[in-house]
Amino acid sequence: MTLQPPARPPIAENQPIDGHSPGIKETAAFADAVADHGGNLARARALFPDTPAPWLDLSTGINPHHYPLRALGAEVFARLPEEARCRELAALAATAYGAPGAAQTVPAAGTQLLLPLVAGLVPPGRAAVLSTSYAEHARAARLAGHAVTEAETLAELETADLAIVVNPNNPDGRVAAREDLAALGRRLSARGGLLVVDEAFMDVGPSGASVAGDVEAAGIVALRSFGKFFGLAGVRLGFALAPRELARRLSARLGPWAVSSPALEYGLAALGDADWQAEMRARLGGEAQRLDTLLAETGLPVAGGTSLFRYLDDVPAQEIFTALGRRGILVRAFEARPRALRLGLPADDSAFLRLADALRAWREGTRSI
Amino acid sequence: MTLQPPARPPIAENQPIDGHSPGIKETAAFADAVADHGGNLARARALFPDTPAPWLDLSTGINPHHYPLRALGAEVFARLPEEARCRELAALAATAYGAPGAAQTVPAAGTQLLLPLVAGLVPPGRAAVLSTSYAEHARAARLAGHAVTEAETLAELETADLAIVVNPNNPDGRVAAREDLAALGRRLSARGGLLVVDEAFMDVGPSGASVAGDVEAAGIVALRSFGKFFGLAGVRLGFALAPRELARRLSARLGPWAVSSPALEYGLAALGDADWQAEMRARLGGEAQRLDTLLAETGLPVAGGTSLFRYLDDVPAQEIFTALGRRGILVRAFEARPRALRLGLPADDSAFLRLADALRAWREGTRSI
Repeated sequence: MTLQPPARPPIAENQPIDGHSPGIKETAAFADAVADHGGNLARARALFPDTPAPWLDLSTGINPHHYPLRALGAEVFARLPEEARCRELAALAATAYGAPGAAQTVPAAGTQLLLPLVAGLVPPGRAAVLSTSYAEHARAARLAGHAVTEAETLAELETADLAIVVNPNNPDGRVAAREDLAALGRRLSARGGLLVVDEAFMDVGPSGASVAGDVEAAGIVALRSFGKFFGLAGVRLGFALAPRELARRLSARLGPWAVSSPALEYGLAALGDADWQAEMRARLGGEAQRLDTLLAETGLPVAGGTSLFRYLDDVPAQEIFTALGRRGILVRAFEARPRALRLGLPADDSAFLRLADALRAWREGTRSI
Repeated sequence: MTLQPPARPPIAENQPIDGHSPGIKETAAFADAVADHGGNLARARALFPDTPAPWLDLSTGINPHHYPLRALGAEVFARLPEEARCRELAALAATAYGAPGAAQTVPAAGTQLLLPLVAGLVPPGRAAVLSTSYAEHARAARLAGHAVTEAETLAELETADLAIVVNPNNPDGRVAAREDLAALGRRLSARGGLLVVDEAFMDVGPSGASVAGDVEAAGIVALRSFGKFFGLAGVRLGFALAPRELARRLSARLGPWAVSSPALEYGLAALGDADWQAEMRARLGGEAQRLDTLLAETGLPVAGGTSLFRYLDDVPAQEIFTALGRRGILVRAFEARPRALRLGLPADDSAFLRLADALRAWREGTRSI
């Protein structure tokens, strides 16, 4: 029997936390949580203080199977990162991502840090973000002095000074065609604007969809995240792929030693390991299918995503968030999408089992009402 | 017998590298090297290709005795840095440095990254740097849109929109009085300007000289470097201590996950270890004295510095740089100070012995001419 998703619960975001009514408290907790980024387990512990540890964190799109770590010698932490080693990393990343070369590749301590710098590459004007997507882009564009609007289609981005597309999109996994983005980039740059394509999840995106090879010719800045696909978000490493002159400006802003030595060493190892990357893509694809099957069995058909996260839309998000949270499972909810949830991949059989149990308990709870 | 420093050699910065004359090649090499930051061993290897490895790097002011490193679990590298852990680090750093509190303390992936952001806290205007100091300050101020001038005295800084003092100064170790800086900060902020005090080497500076406690009241931004005193430059960690509102603006620019997890973990361990800090200050003081004695015995009286580096002025810098470089010892030379050198501390007896041998060989070479 396939269950229909239960009806939408009321979400009373403005109700106070009075500490007496669990319902009100959890509603407020949900309202807090949706404003969060993923991965905030300290907040999760505060929201669900009675939940037994350890938490199962499915709130991010970070690969739960990290690239194998070799032990680093003390000298890696002690000495300044070597400039030559950073140039090696830029060259290797250019090859791995398909950018024109090291001169178009800027390593940084995470793409997050790059967002306001990239938004500042064009004079303050009107920024348009293809909606609804990663909230940090709008925030970064405002910091750089832009007035920010949301756009529903690529065509609407054409009149912006700064246009931002997340591709594949987070959280729904929507993919824009490479040729459309390249054309948009050329039109924007021809009149002094800039297209930014955030390819944070492109490592598991469709083959041939990346604009990495187009950045110079089409005047695009593409952002690549290291930590998500390689499962090493703690090291802080990301790249801007950009036309040579913009890459030079970004590098100047970051200054010397922009990337820590552990990030340099792990980046060089992982980006150079094409075999691991290919095997991991296949493995993540299989695990995403397994998650889809589990969700479908619970009456939750997957509406999109990438193989690093799955996206549920038009579901009782608050109710599922709370039911899972009480059982120590953190998923991602969204302020702008109150009926949506995003789930990262469970790391192993026991995590899949735990999620299955929690979803079954939620389903049985709703059925008994 | 005390030797006088040999006469100044000609420095022909504009001579071409022709590959035939070692003298000209090494002069050009020196011209390249002075534009470098410290710690660039790859450049040193290229300059002195016949030098046997390993190099002894005395070109930085980084403590050669790093804080003891505990092994970090894979989860430290795999998971996103936790926001709560970063707040703990801010609170601990505030206590360790004497800042008003966590609200005035901004952790970042190295102070280098903070320089243009701090310079951008005031609208583009006239920046003045107390000369001659760390070149990155002038570069960062220009990036933020300021016209940059050099000032010889604190008094000359009073008319600037952005005033920058490195205290203790790098490379000469000059120290400005805390009360003078606080007064300057108040006067600048009263008319919309800003005083930035780079306290990169204040961990080994005179007791009571830090303006960390004055940042809120005097409207100052102080910069603290983690990697230098704790000998962990590869992790990239630094702090801005700033009035609450400026700290908030800096944090917003950095965004979430501004500090890597290894930096968080080592920062929390080291900044909380007051015993190690006190013992290390005493140890470094002793080793700096030992280096002074060695240099004086070679006819090179030390003109200043801190206990993390010693400063030589009015010496045949190019000649010493080259003589040491041929023996695999890298020291710091300066574009703006062609008669000056800076030497970091040798790590141990064998490094002291190697430096002593190389200095003796240089001295005997000059005597035989």
